[in-house]
Amino acid sequence: MIKAGIVGVSGYGGVELFHILSNHPDVEITAISSRSYAGKKIGEVYPHLINYDITCKEYTPDEIAELCDVIFTAVPHGGPGMEFAAAGKKAGKKVIDLSADFRLKDLSIYEEWYKTKHMFPEFLNEAVYGLPELYREKIKKTWLIANPGCYTTSAILSLCPIIKEKIIDETSIIVDAKSGTSGAGRTLKQNLHFSELDASFQAYSIPKHRHCPEIEQEISNFSDNKIKITFTPHLVPMVRGILSVSYAKLIKKISQDDLVEIYKNIYKDEPFVRILTTHLPNTKFVSNTNYIDIAVKIDDRTDRVIIISAIDNLIKGASGQAVQNMNIMFGLNEKNGLNLKCAYP
Amino acid sequence: MIKAGIVGVSGYGGVELFHILSNHPDVEITAISSRSYAGKKIGEVYPHLINYDITCKEYTPDEIAELCDVIFTAVPHGGPGMEFAAAGKKAGKKVIDLSADFRLKDLSIYEEWYKTKHMFPEFLNEAVYGLPELYREKIKKTWLIANPGCYTTSAILSLCPIIKEKIIDETSIIVDAKSGTSGAGRTLKQNLHFSELDASFQAYSIPKHRHCPEIEQEISNFSDNKIKITFTPHLVPMVRGILSVSYAKLIKKISQDDLVEIYKNIYKDEPFVRILTTHLPNTKFVSNTNYIDIAVKIDDRTDRVIIISAIDNLIKGASGQAVQNMNIMFGLNEKNGLNLKCAYP
Amino acid sequence: MIKAGIVGVSGYGGVELFHILSNHPDVEITAISSRSYAGKKIGEVYPHLINYDITCKEYTPDEIAELCDVIFTAVPHGGPGMEFAAAGKKAGKKVIDLSADFRLKDLSIYEEWYKTKHMFPEFLNEAVYGLPELYREKIKKTWLIANPGCYTTSAILSLCPIIKEKIIDETSIIVDAKSGTSGAGRTLKQNLHFSELDASFQAYSIPKHRHCPEIEQEISNFSDNKIKITFTPHLVPMVRGILSVSYAKLIKKISQDDLVEIYKNIYKDEPFVRILTTHLPNTKFVSNTNYIDIAVKIDDRTDRVIIISAIDNLIKGASGQAVQNMNIMFGLNEKNGLNLKCAYP
Amino acid sequence: MIKAGIVGVSGYGGVELFHILSNHPDVEITAISSRSYAGKKIGEVYPHLINYDITCKEYTPDEIAELCDVIFTAVPHGGPGMEFAAAGKKAGKKVIDLSADFRLKDLSIYEEWYKTKHMFPEFLNEAVYGLPELYREKIKKTWLIANPGCYTTSAILSLCPIIKEKIIDETSIIVDAKSGTSGAGRTLKQNLHFSELDASFQAYSIPKHRHCPEIEQEISNFSDNKIKITFTPHLVPMVRGILSVSYAKLIKKISQDDLVEIYKNIYKDEPFVRILTTHLPNTKFVSNTNYIDIAVKIDDRTDRVIIISAIDNLIKGASGQAVQNMNIMFGLNEKNGLNLKCAYP
Repeated sequence: MIKAGIVGVSGYGGVELFHILSNHPDVEITAISSRSYAGKKIGEVYPHLINYDITCKEYTPDEIAELCDVIFTAVPHGGPGMEFAAAGKKAGKKVIDLSADFRLKDLSIYEEWYKTKHMFPEFLNEAVYGLPELYREKIKKTWLIANPGCYTTSAILSLCPIIKEKIIDETSIIVDAKSGTSGAGRTLKQNLHFSELDASFQAYSIPKHRHCPEIEQEISNFSDNKIKITFTPHLVPMVRGILSVSYAKLIKKISQDDLVEIYKNIYKDEPFVRILTTHLPNTKFVSNTNYIDIAVKIDDRTDRVIIISAIDNLIKGASGQAVQNMNIMFGLNEKNGLNLKCAYP
Repeated sequence: MIKAGIVGVSGYGGVELFHILSNHPDVEITAISSRSYAGKKIGEVYPHLINYDITCKEYTPDEIAELCDVIFTAVPHGGPGMEFAAAGKKAGKKVIDLSADFRLKDLSIYEEWYKTKHMFPEFLNEAVYGLPELYREKIKKTWLIANPGCYTTSAILSLCPIIKEKIIDETSIIVDAKSGTSGAGRTLKQNLHFSELDASFQAYSIPKHRHCPEIEQEISNFSDNKIKITFTPHLVPMVRGILSVSYAKLIKKISQDDLVEIYKNIYKDEPFVRILTTHLPNTKFVSNTNYIDIAVKIDDRTDRVIIISAIDNLIKGASGQAVQNMNIMFGLNEKNGLNLKCAYP
Repeated sequence: MIKAGIVGVSGYGGVELFHILSNHPDVEITAISSRSYAGKKIGEVYPHLINYDITCKEYTPDEIAELCDVIFTAVPHGGPGMEFAAAGKKAGKKVIDLSADFRLKDLSIYEEWYKTKHMFPEFLNEAVYGLPELYREKIKKTWLIANPGCYTTSAILSLCPIIKEKIIDETSIIVDAKSGTSGAGRTLKQNLHFSELDASFQAYSIPKHRHCPEIEQEISNFSDNKIKITFTPHLVPMVRGILSVSYAKLIKKISQDDLVEIYKNIYKDEPFVRILTTHLPNTKFVSNTNYIDIAVKIDDRTDRVIIISAIDNLIKGASGQAVQNMNIMFGLNEKNGLNLKCAYP
Repeated sequence: MIKAGIVGVSGYGGVELFHILSNHPDVEITAISSRSYAGKKIGEVYPHLINYDITCKEYTPDEIAELCDVIFTAVPHGGPGMEFAAAGKKAGKKVIDLSADFRLKDLSIYEEWYKTKHMFPEFLNEAVYGLPELYREKIKKTWLIANPGCYTTSAILSLCPIIKEKIIDETSIIVDAKSGTSGAGRTLKQNLHFSELDASFQAYSIPKHRHCPEIEQEISNFSDNKIKITFTPHLVPMVRGILSVSYAKLIKKISQDDLVEIYKNIYKDEPFVRILTTHLPNTKFVSNTNYIDIAVKIDDRTDRVIIISAIDNLIKGASGQAVQNMNIMFGLNEKNGLNLKCAYP
């Protein structure tokens, strides 16, 4: 059994890790860490978990590293969470970080967009961006995973194939993405108050959202250029799910069928990618699962390609993907613990 | 591996059986039957299941009985669904019926409330009402389970302890229950149209709903009287979950603590019953799980007892309970296939 | 034009008063008071009101009383809000209080349930409980309205007819009520966070909610006894609306038609009461209106009467009723300003 | 009083006309027409209207024309609805058509996108596209209004200013729009079933939706070119509201402030347009009102302009705009009947 620790179990990413790992056949949760809830049982933090007999503590990084084979850090970027990575490295343990701290390879971009000094820039080169569809071999060998953001997972897997194929104008990319509210976290805010959010739809963080440089970095890896995109996030009155629609101008004629073929081919061995041809992605079709559903369309009136993708932001967009990465790092079947009963309808 | 067949896979009860059984470690789904979708792959009926390669057929009862060790029938009451039970019996297979056909022991009550003639009244005595908390030993030995209704599961498990303890006036029972929309099924209706149901709350079927005699039958089993209750169902603008609040007049003084103790004691070995004392039941806390959460309160201003319980109507209220029954019938660990990741938040 | 002031405009009751009064043909809003938002334009408190050029101030009670003919106080009970009533009285102005401060005639009950000392007990006898259907003549003559609570409006108008008619056992009354989230106010709370409340249904404050003694006081006015009831509130995942279902045991035989006739007769001249016979009340049917819809049913299996009623908690349950009271106090047509376009669907 | 008739009162556009016109100070509804509900009172079609004593009939076009000064037709395109326009013209009455029948000036485009023959092509030149912000003077003089579609209202008012100013690359326009479910109408469909739509988000009709040529026609009026755009609609799990986000590449440097100034200037006298600078549009902020809220942003990382706008699809996107047009046609104050109490929260 792999001994796993969760730092920041009280947030939505943390509790979703708890949900998945507590049913994972190869994992034992040996430590759950929380500053605000230290001394509380998990059922006092989340009443629906009242039947689990495990207590939050405020562990030091070294304590966690000693108790666990793998540490999941699900805490805000730029804070003391980074020290858990350092302790993990020192103790020879694996670390999967769900924050943005190790995602951006360019230190100056991190510090510009996140307005904070990085504590361990030396780890940036060791960290592997945790998208198995792109970096499976590197994930097998690293000790440190920079687990992708939720918007970015859907955008990068949507865009990489057309970047690789060099069929689009790289200056023309727009990603219009829509997220459920769990992506905004558990902290109380007026705009997340039920009475104000229900029956509402809004865009936010226009024109600059922090997931923008992360998408740009990853898709630029498949190009000779530093690609810049326009990225617009929205808040949907539902809890789970991201749907992103990506637009780009074609620079070559390509048929609808050939475009589909490109996507099917690139993702043909991926256990969690589904290329749809009979219907369009719908967040509800992937809710409570680790799937990403992708459909591609050519608008031949304007020579644009439109890629639509859907994920569950807390699973393929966060904790499920983290577990997928863990499975790869430990040589397990990649799907272990991720055969989740979908919540449809 | 147990070979399982699902009759009526296209309804919400049927597809939820598919979800659970397709991840069950001891089960192989060998047949899915549907009249309206015969010839269609399951992914054509439900796009979120596009990665399963299994096709709906219109099987005869005998065909299904031959292909399966256990047949789940999730079709409307009073129809040809009953013939699957007969075929199952003939072939020596087990049958778990999710309709109302075998729940009511008194034929005349069935025919009065369901306005139909019963095709196999001789099975009524062989059928076991599939509430493991009440009838586990009988479930082990039967071939035919009458799987309880969703409202009734929550009402019966709420009420049985106080009936057994003889502490209430049996003429004073009121059950005020509230259900998510999936309980109303997949058939299109004006009042289930999103634009008309969203942001609405309503009661229906007052004063006579078909689950009423079923609750009365089961709680009367623990009394010397034929108990009659008032039962009021409501439709909540959410998909999953039932919360029921049951009221009864106390005929004996009893303390809050003693009342809790009664419930804790009766359900102490039950894997899926949780008696709450630190918070009240909430449908979301049991969503996508097989749990029933129960809390009990004494209103000492009026000498009433109030019992609140919550279930996921499609799981503990239907398909999860059906699988729990199957596990018991086949001597498996009762929790197999039911360690479901909850969908919170 | 009647000069109106709103104390506590930033809460949901306050802003709904603003919405209604700003379109009222006989009213000019001359002062809006808010401590937390003093100095802010109303559009900074509520962005949807950006086109109104009026600024919140922290007025003293005397200042408001000078500026207005009528003062609406929509602030928490037990606080300095009461001083606005005193200032209003001193200045000879009318006061409509939306809190609980002047609703309970028995000082000891107020102090027991609201855990606070009353500042102006001498006003309790002058205050008129603001239910026009019961007290229209008194409302015409008073300077101080104790505007009813949201749950209580629906419960009292449901129950009074059968109390008056003396056809029920007065010890048997149960009110099971369900409210949208706007009734819980604008203050942030974990259980009102969208991600935790959406797709949830729960009961709360069992067995003691503060609206209980208010309902008991008002229905006891029509009886020789001090009636005690059981009252259970719930939170529905929708913003507006209350549906309450009231139960009582019949002590006389009465037909369904005669029962309907009683209700139709009692409310025959009421502009905002609709007795339904062709369908059941639905919160959406009264959403954004000042109507209360009521249906009555006899459960002849158990000799109970069941009364279902629906209101918009912010309108007939709060601000609309306050304006209806204002119209009566000033001798206007009772419907002025209340011909609201419903929000259906 | 203006005598108004509504053809197709049972649809959501029709009933919203009923809601607005029944409270309009200058209007009397003299006829409501419905084929499916002929002989039914409006309260039998929509229970929330039970207090209105008016009955649906299946009027002939000539009958309606005789009974009314203005006929609103809210029926599907391409059908016999067009004959009401002809009858209106013959009788010298005004006609406001909410379908697509008279919107597209180019007959071949209409017949290509709507797959139907046009019955009265001779009216196309007489019809005025009913966007008061663009065509107020023509609206004053015409007898026939082609009332805009819901998506199109928000897109056209978003885009016209930057087209007029000639600051964008006209081949670069993308409109990504999101609609509440009432835009999909009252007809039952599987994807509009509450259990399947709640908690879901999806795009549809990619890459060709019928509102596309309508937007193109109108914005091309302000250009020398025939502009083609990419238009993507989505379905949001809420009933009312459209939020559209429009993207275009700048061909001139322009500051954020100057861009805002352009919009403020163009719409400075418009009673129902609000240019936002302190917050972004949110469908809930315009819910149940006739406002369109617009914000503009420059993404200087990619030299794009982003325009966000929000309307209530049934009001400014359909029936409210129709009434605004009526007010203009009859020389009334444009806001009469449209001072609607918003439904916030």
